[in-house]
Amino acid sequence: MGKVVAEVIIVPYGTGTPSLSRYVADVERVLKSYNLKTMLTPMGTILEGDLDSVLEAVKAAHQVPFESGALRVGTTIRIDERRDKELDMYEKVKSVEEKLRTE
Amino acid sequence: MGKVVAEVIIVPYGTGTPSLSRYVADVERVLKSYNLKTMLTPMGTILEGDLDSVLEAVKAAHQVPFESGALRVGTTIRIDERRDKELDMYEKVKSVEEKLRTE
Amino acid sequence: MGKVVAEVIIVPYGTGTPSLSRYVADVERVLKSYNLKTMLTPMGTILEGDLDSVLEAVKAAHQVPFESGALRVGTTIRIDERRDKELDMYEKVKSVEEKLRTE
Amino acid sequence: MGKVVAEVIIVPYGTGTPSLSRYVADVERVLKSYNLKTMLTPMGTILEGDLDSVLEAVKAAHQVPFESGALRVGTTIRIDERRDKELDMYEKVKSVEEKLRTE
Repeated sequence: MGKVVAEVIIVPYGTGTPSLSRYVADVERVLKSYNLKTMLTPMGTILEGDLDSVLEAVKAAHQVPFESGALRVGTTIRIDERRDKELDMYEKVKSVEEKLRTE
Repeated sequence: MGKVVAEVIIVPYGTGTPSLSRYVADVERVLKSYNLKTMLTPMGTILEGDLDSVLEAVKAAHQVPFESGALRVGTTIRIDERRDKELDMYEKVKSVEEKLRTE
Repeated sequence: MGKVVAEVIIVPYGTGTPSLSRYVADVERVLKSYNLKTMLTPMGTILEGDLDSVLEAVKAAHQVPFESGALRVGTTIRIDERRDKELDMYEKVKSVEEKLRTE
Repeated sequence: MGKVVAEVIIVPYGTGTPSLSRYVADVERVLKSYNLKTMLTPMGTILEGDLDSVLEAVKAAHQVPFESGALRVGTTIRIDERRDKELDMYEKVKSVEEKLRTE
């Protein structure tokens, strides 16, 4: 099984406050504790690693807002996998940026 | 660990034809082989069951388009879990429809 | 511009209750007031119509939870458009189900 | 109407090649031609601006892969809007990173 690049978004519902950064920070701490490359963006966290580890990390991170008292959690994962060549999160951006410069 | 309701979308890229129904049918067959409630919609498949089984099924189904020759697969999972009461995919719709009728 | 099939999910954050069906019902009412085919599923609402109308409906529906007091709203839209033939939400499901029966 | 932070993913189907960076670059060029803050990530493009402009940009960008010959296009938009204070894409990340450092 090869590497995947994935995006994960984990949010609590019904917390009584529109600020979610405390929950996102707790989730981030758990995601970072796995053997994965991670990148925090304004709309989620990007992970890179083998699919098993990514799903393991997401399963653990999905529990985190419940532990902080949330009664409902929504988790979204988008997985991108290529088998003709291995994806790399930095190469993906670089490849687009090169085309933006040269065309 | 309680039950979750989830939506799964698994699509191949670069297959040479805009029709995806053959790939979706193959994915559906694998999703249905797990011990989960499933519902095929025009935009994905809805699953209900414990989180471990849902992720197990999605991991297996994500491999399916590769086995049919796809070189790139994109998989999206949206998971909804409530801990104050157990979610049920039919109840979720019924609860909204009741409010649509009575308000 | 042709027809699209789309999925829309509109949720409030920080409302103080894990139950979202009241908000979903209000959103649904607005989506149904547009000239679109709609289908409520356990994980969102599926719309069919031209892209302009779909985006117009989503823009209006995105305001709805704010009007009910929410301070933060998350809206997700997934749009599927084919130009070699027109997509139809019921045909999409039928086409997969036929392949499930015959193969 | 206030500012939103959004993520956009626009991909062609059935192009015959698993490489999508050429299509993503064309989409990016159109997104950048609008009066919006943009940030290219390994899994999509993040936009910041008023909702009308974001949807206008996405509508235009959704046409781009068709112009390059794609017969099917999938577009996903995730919109985040807060009304108690204005969201800012860099502040969103900073706010999480501060909590990661201090707790």
